[in-house]
Amino acid sequence: MPSMYETSVPVFIRALDNLSTILEKGEAFAKAKGTDPSDLVETRLIEDMDPLRAQIQRASDSAKGAGARLTGTDNPSFADEETSFSELQERIAKTVSYLKGLEAKAFDGSESREVTINSRRVAVTMSGQDYLLKFALPNFFFHVTTAYDILRHKGVEVGKMDYIGQL
Amino acid sequence: MPSMYETSVPVFIRALDNLSTILEKGEAFAKAKGTDPSDLVETRLIEDMDPLRAQIQRASDSAKGAGARLTGTDNPSFADEETSFSELQERIAKTVSYLKGLEAKAFDGSESREVTINSRRVAVTMSGQDYLLKFALPNFFFHVTTAYDILRHKGVEVGKMDYIGQL
Repeated sequence: MPSMYETSVPVFIRALDNLSTILEKGEAFAKAKGTDPSDLVETRLIEDMDPLRAQIQRASDSAKGAGARLTGTDNPSFADEETSFSELQERIAKTVSYLKGLEAKAFDGSESREVTINSRRVAVTMSGQDYLLKFALPNFFFHVTTAYDILRHKGVEVGKMDYIGQL
Repeated sequence: MPSMYETSVPVFIRALDNLSTILEKGEAFAKAKGTDPSDLVETRLIEDMDPLRAQIQRASDSAKGAGARLTGTDNPSFADEETSFSELQERIAKTVSYLKGLEAKAFDGSESREVTINSRRVAVTMSGQDYLLKFALPNFFFHVTTAYDILRHKGVEVGKMDYIGQL
């Protein structure tokens, strides 16, 4: 059976590495078109939805929040100040570095650890396993996919295998 | 530790149920606007990307493919003939029904079962656990999220909690 660690940390790291490659293609696309890459960073699928920048920030928060909640350790606060592709790449690198610093054994027993999150401004408490499978993983993949979808929508030549990564 | 069953079947069913609600909102939106719901079913984020219809079909395939490969049983073939919201709802219902018919104990040991998939037309063999965590789950959430993103992009009033569902 996959451990709580295996079901979270390496899954997040893998997808964040793929997201980094996807962002590289986005930046290269903007430069090749002679457009300002910062415009792409601010692109949204619709005006009241988060822009590319925020999709990366939320994917980062999802991954580090899961790492912290499942190990019962402090959740490092990353300011949402990124406005360029290079800063978003740093945000991803910082998140991966944090995840790599977590020890697998710190996740032992986390399936039954009580986790509380705020959903629609209401505190909801659940087991670590429910938190990971019902909230953290779906939410994380939502933001990684939406980042991909924003770039794909704008014409960046990314393909599904950039999202899945090498198998 | 979450079992292979717990990490797959209930996760898929939950997200497919949420996807059904999201599609209901999409259909209601088209009707309220007085537009043909079938046009929304054919909507894409960009011309060479799969339309809404195909995102549902691929989410369905991802979920049932994982169920079949992890249990070493036949993968039921569902023809990709859906062209309306009601047919897409049937596709989701059929997929959920198939998943509900799988027994949890049929997944025992599937973490080390050899699974072969075709990626970029090349057969890739990996353990059931790698297949689930590196391919099936990310791929499944990709298609569910992209279905959401297409509807959101067109102005359908869906929110992230429709995607996450009740916690």
